[in-house]
Amino acid sequence: MKYLIYIVSIIVITFCSSCKQESSKKPIDSMAIEPFTEFNEIQRVEPSNWWVGFKSSKLQLLVKDDSISMAKPEISYDGVSIEKVSKGTSPNYLFIDLNISESAKAGKFNIVFTFDNGTQKTQTYELKSRSKPAEDYKGFDSSDVIYLITPDRFANGNPLNDVFAYLNEKTIDRKDDYARHGGDIKGITDHLDYIHDMGFTAIWPTPLLTNDMYRASYHGYAMTDFYQVDPRFGTLDEYKKLADKAREQGMKLIMDQVVNHCGSEHWWMKDLPFDDWVNQQKSFEDKTELKKSSHRRTINQDLYASQQDKHDMSDGWFAPTMPDLNQQNPFMATYLIQNSIWWIETLGLGGIRQDTYPYSDKAFLAKWAGTIMTEYPNFSIVGEEWSYNPLLIAYWQDGHVNKDGYDSNLKSPMDFAMQKQIVSALNEDEQWDTGLVKMYEGLANDFAYARPKDIMIFPDNHDMSRIFTQLHEDVAKTKMAVGYILTLPRIVQIYYGTEILMNDTAKPGDHGLIRSDFPGGWEGDATNAFTGEGLTDAQKDMQLFMKKLLNYRKNSNAIHEGKTIHFAPQNGVYVLFRILDDEVVSVILNKSSDTSLELSRFEEVGLQGKQVKDIISGEVSTWGDNIAINPNGITLFTTKLN
Amino acid sequence: MKYLIYIVSIIVITFCSSCKQESSKKPIDSMAIEPFTEFNEIQRVEPSNWWVGFKSSKLQLLVKDDSISMAKPEISYDGVSIEKVSKGTSPNYLFIDLNISESAKAGKFNIVFTFDNGTQKTQTYELKSRSKPAEDYKGFDSSDVIYLITPDRFANGNPLNDVFAYLNEKTIDRKDDYARHGGDIKGITDHLDYIHDMGFTAIWPTPLLTNDMYRASYHGYAMTDFYQVDPRFGTLDEYKKLADKAREQGMKLIMDQVVNHCGSEHWWMKDLPFDDWVNQQKSFEDKTELKKSSHRRTINQDLYASQQDKHDMSDGWFAPTMPDLNQQNPFMATYLIQNSIWWIETLGLGGIRQDTYPYSDKAFLAKWAGTIMTEYPNFSIVGEEWSYNPLLIAYWQDGHVNKDGYDSNLKSPMDFAMQKQIVSALNEDEQWDTGLVKMYEGLANDFAYARPKDIMIFPDNHDMSRIFTQLHEDVAKTKMAVGYILTLPRIVQIYYGTEILMNDTAKPGDHGLIRSDFPGGWEGDATNAFTGEGLTDAQKDMQLFMKKLLNYRKNSNAIHEGKTIHFAPQNGVYVLFRILDDEVVSVILNKSSDTSLELSRFEEVGLQGKQVKDIISGEVSTWGDNIAINPNGITLFTTKLN
Repeated sequence: MKYLIYIVSIIVITFCSSCKQESSKKPIDSMAIEPFTEFNEIQRVEPSNWWVGFKSSKLQLLVKDDSISMAKPEISYDGVSIEKVSKGTSPNYLFIDLNISESAKAGKFNIVFTFDNGTQKTQTYELKSRSKPAEDYKGFDSSDVIYLITPDRFANGNPLNDVFAYLNEKTIDRKDDYARHGGDIKGITDHLDYIHDMGFTAIWPTPLLTNDMYRASYHGYAMTDFYQVDPRFGTLDEYKKLADKAREQGMKLIMDQVVNHCGSEHWWMKDLPFDDWVNQQKSFEDKTELKKSSHRRTINQDLYASQQDKHDMSDGWFAPTMPDLNQQNPFMATYLIQNSIWWIETLGLGGIRQDTYPYSDKAFLAKWAGTIMTEYPNFSIVGEEWSYNPLLIAYWQDGHVNKDGYDSNLKSPMDFAMQKQIVSALNEDEQWDTGLVKMYEGLANDFAYARPKDIMIFPDNHDMSRIFTQLHEDVAKTKMAVGYILTLPRIVQIYYGTEILMNDTAKPGDHGLIRSDFPGGWEGDATNAFTGEGLTDAQKDMQLFMKKLLNYRKNSNAIHEGKTIHFAPQNGVYVLFRILDDEVVSVILNKSSDTSLELSRFEEVGLQGKQVKDIISGEVSTWGDNIAINPNGITLFTTKLN
Repeated sequence: MKYLIYIVSIIVITFCSSCKQESSKKPIDSMAIEPFTEFNEIQRVEPSNWWVGFKSSKLQLLVKDDSISMAKPEISYDGVSIEKVSKGTSPNYLFIDLNISESAKAGKFNIVFTFDNGTQKTQTYELKSRSKPAEDYKGFDSSDVIYLITPDRFANGNPLNDVFAYLNEKTIDRKDDYARHGGDIKGITDHLDYIHDMGFTAIWPTPLLTNDMYRASYHGYAMTDFYQVDPRFGTLDEYKKLADKAREQGMKLIMDQVVNHCGSEHWWMKDLPFDDWVNQQKSFEDKTELKKSSHRRTINQDLYASQQDKHDMSDGWFAPTMPDLNQQNPFMATYLIQNSIWWIETLGLGGIRQDTYPYSDKAFLAKWAGTIMTEYPNFSIVGEEWSYNPLLIAYWQDGHVNKDGYDSNLKSPMDFAMQKQIVSALNEDEQWDTGLVKMYEGLANDFAYARPKDIMIFPDNHDMSRIFTQLHEDVAKTKMAVGYILTLPRIVQIYYGTEILMNDTAKPGDHGLIRSDFPGGWEGDATNAFTGEGLTDAQKDMQLFMKKLLNYRKNSNAIHEGKTIHFAPQNGVYVLFRILDDEVVSVILNKSSDTSLELSRFEEVGLQGKQVKDIISGEVSTWGDNIAINPNGITLFTTKLN
């Protein structure tokens, strides 16, 4: 019974979200010429639509229907031809390779499936016009600060979509850190003004696609449908509206995608198209032991790694509820690549964040990223490699010369290495080899990166203890970490709530707690961080600190593109400058109680006698023999040289 | 008075060690043709001789004598011409650039210095024939295991040269860890048989040149004459004899050189040729504060390093007793390069170890190494960069693609990073991210190196706590560390005494204690490690373990050149294979108490059903479903596949 409800609901939602919504919007050229009757006789065709005008003329449709492999598909549409039809090992799938020639026009056509006994099924398919040139899909870069949001925990914009009886997880409970809390897309859209006013220039909500899992579905990383918005987060229209509204405010929308795994309740897990659609498929089907990934991520680079270790890492499951997709199956690879392109084109994305990067097949990853970057040359992708080893970070970045010849096509790796150095630097006592020197030497590693400013850094994220907790709830140190990060040659990501010192101190590192509700996101919240109501003085101070710095950064070419000069820590003070043309940003991290800094050491920067303005307080002073600085804290100056 | 003795002694020794010894040996061609009168009227000419037949036709002589800058030098010798004469800022130096054409023959000629008043001084100079082709100077490589010796502490071969009244440090005291103990070159030469029988293939004595310092002169790194053997270590003839005898036994002699600094009692410090011969020269001459190096070694790579930080690191003195040589002065640069070549050619060296590598000017270093490698294409140089950061190790190695375009010409950096990982791996408890995984992930970093097998690794060295102490005097762990290191794709260096578990446990890291006397090196020693007399069972066992493994390694192509496969640690067991043609070496590190290893995981290596022989015990067993292994220890097997 449950199964029946599930199937029915999927069909309803699929058609609802991908076909029906679109079909009524604009009249299609071909419709004007001859009346066209639409058919929806096939359970599932993915991608549910496509576009004309891509560089690649290829499209591979996954068709799922009872015994569909017995049917022969035919299409009659100018410029579209069937190049190849492939079967899986399940009789209920067919893969159709189409060629969409340059001459093909946007429009609808029917795919007619004829079975041996003469019966037919027909499915209407649409090729749309692209809404803007490929070059206009501009990705995030070092001018951006990205607001990372766990949508279930940010704001409940629509209380009517909190629970759906047909979904497996049927409860909402804000007291349970691992239950759904009701946050949604509308909650984000409603508060874009706040995010924009704070000075962020991009948003990255963690995955919004359906996770029809029985438990902990709130986090979104166990997708059960790669083409469907989770109804508890909203509709595809709402997702598009978020994208549009963000774009209007000059903010980029980044989509969190997962090619490594799906949720164990994914629709295809009940009838897998190939016998190698997921890794360890036989064990899954036989219900024998499923091996988890060894998580030994070094196998991707290690020239000495055994085949066994490679297998244990890449083919193991990330978690028992997350089947590991086999990207070495070419149909799976194509499915995932097309899925990414479908979302970029549908939402007009400003970037993709790819989950658990090193766990997928690395040849596939290069192809995936390469295909996207070929279609969208100005796009950005950031891959999550959780490694403290700069060698691995360097390896993954597009343009790094790797001995094994690997070219990732990945613009942005993540800088877990530097994040860790920053926390150590601030928590440790100052000695010759501890304390601020960890930042100084960590940043020195930039020499090894192809493009440091395309690497993404963050004080923390949704999988990591909150920075305020990592720094033992020291506000001054939290400002030092955030202030330093915001002035580095990097793309910056800030997790929602950092600005109001959200913490997980009660249970450091607990995922549910890290992803606490943003105060004010729910009606009746006693505290409201959007309005400031009920915030403590420390929270208000932090919020204002970040707002001022973020809004300064937004227009600071020196921070976006400038050269960097830094000076080895001395007496607990570490000084870094960002310089471009006549703009100099000075960042002074002071772990001592000194209130004045002797300046002769910094002569080469050329600030002598210049007026410098404190970015936070607005106070103006002169860069003379000494300058007043905040004791045990960060001081940020800006100077116009001319 | 002291000064007078010093000057006299230098002159006596200089002539003794470089001219007189040579002049009587073989009749020179030119002497046969016409009688040749030799003159020695100049205090100092360096290099004291040179050779014909180098690729470079250039030679720059440093000439030191009272008011010599006022004189005009002339030479009349076929194929040799004076290209340029340069003065320093001191009137007592002259630098003569010679061109030695291809047609120049070996022989002696006079340099006649004519002063304005018509007076003359004459100095005889010799160009020798080279004793072997440049290609025959074969450096160390991954087939080598180098025995590192602190000569003062290894063996006292000649008790008559222990103390010299004319030298500044006049005492010998074996009870004082920082005093001279009397070890010397003859002590090493006398025990080459032992070193050879143990299975070492090269020796690296720490510096043997004169350190006429007042204190702690035993270590040799504060040279006061770059062309003179310290008389307490012996004579140039004895150094040559050591080289010859080592060569006869198939062992390479590596010279420890220092281009970064000299000792503060160096002869030239009393009358410096230029006002920028050493860094901070003005402070030295004015006796004002001398800045020590900041030791912030990252400035060599850091693209953001301030000029101030670069200056503080490179131009600071390594120690107050070690003036920092200014290699940016081109005469200094040439002096140092020629000095290295003079020693290679004089001793027939099998390699150079260059001290404190990152402290010297890096452009100079590249030129220094490049010039040597051009003259001796098969030579080897290892540079000491004490960094745990693989990025820096990679940067320094010849052939690594550096973003800043730097090419070091350095074949071998040192692997302090991996050494540290190994110690951590063995000391830490086994958990997912601690213990043996540190070795596994450390070795995985090899992917980033241009040529891992040209990197030098070591269990410890003369500046570092003894490995036995680092591993808390655990013999089994010491064998694991040494055994693993000896089977890695690396050049290996072992510090003398490691084979008998020498330790510095009483005061870990104390330099004097690290460099304790090798038992048996002094007459009357109660214990004699050369004969085994008085060694404990544990010492004998370790010595035998190393002897067997070293002698196996000597002929193991799989270890020298083979491919490497390793398997992530599981249940406290980490397994690594070295394979070439039909030879497989298996290295099993077992931190558990298990006595048997299940082998199915290693199937890809192809050992199933093969006979494997324990390299240490000689026992033969079969690689079946399981194999017996040493609990809490290392097991080393060798297999012939065919």
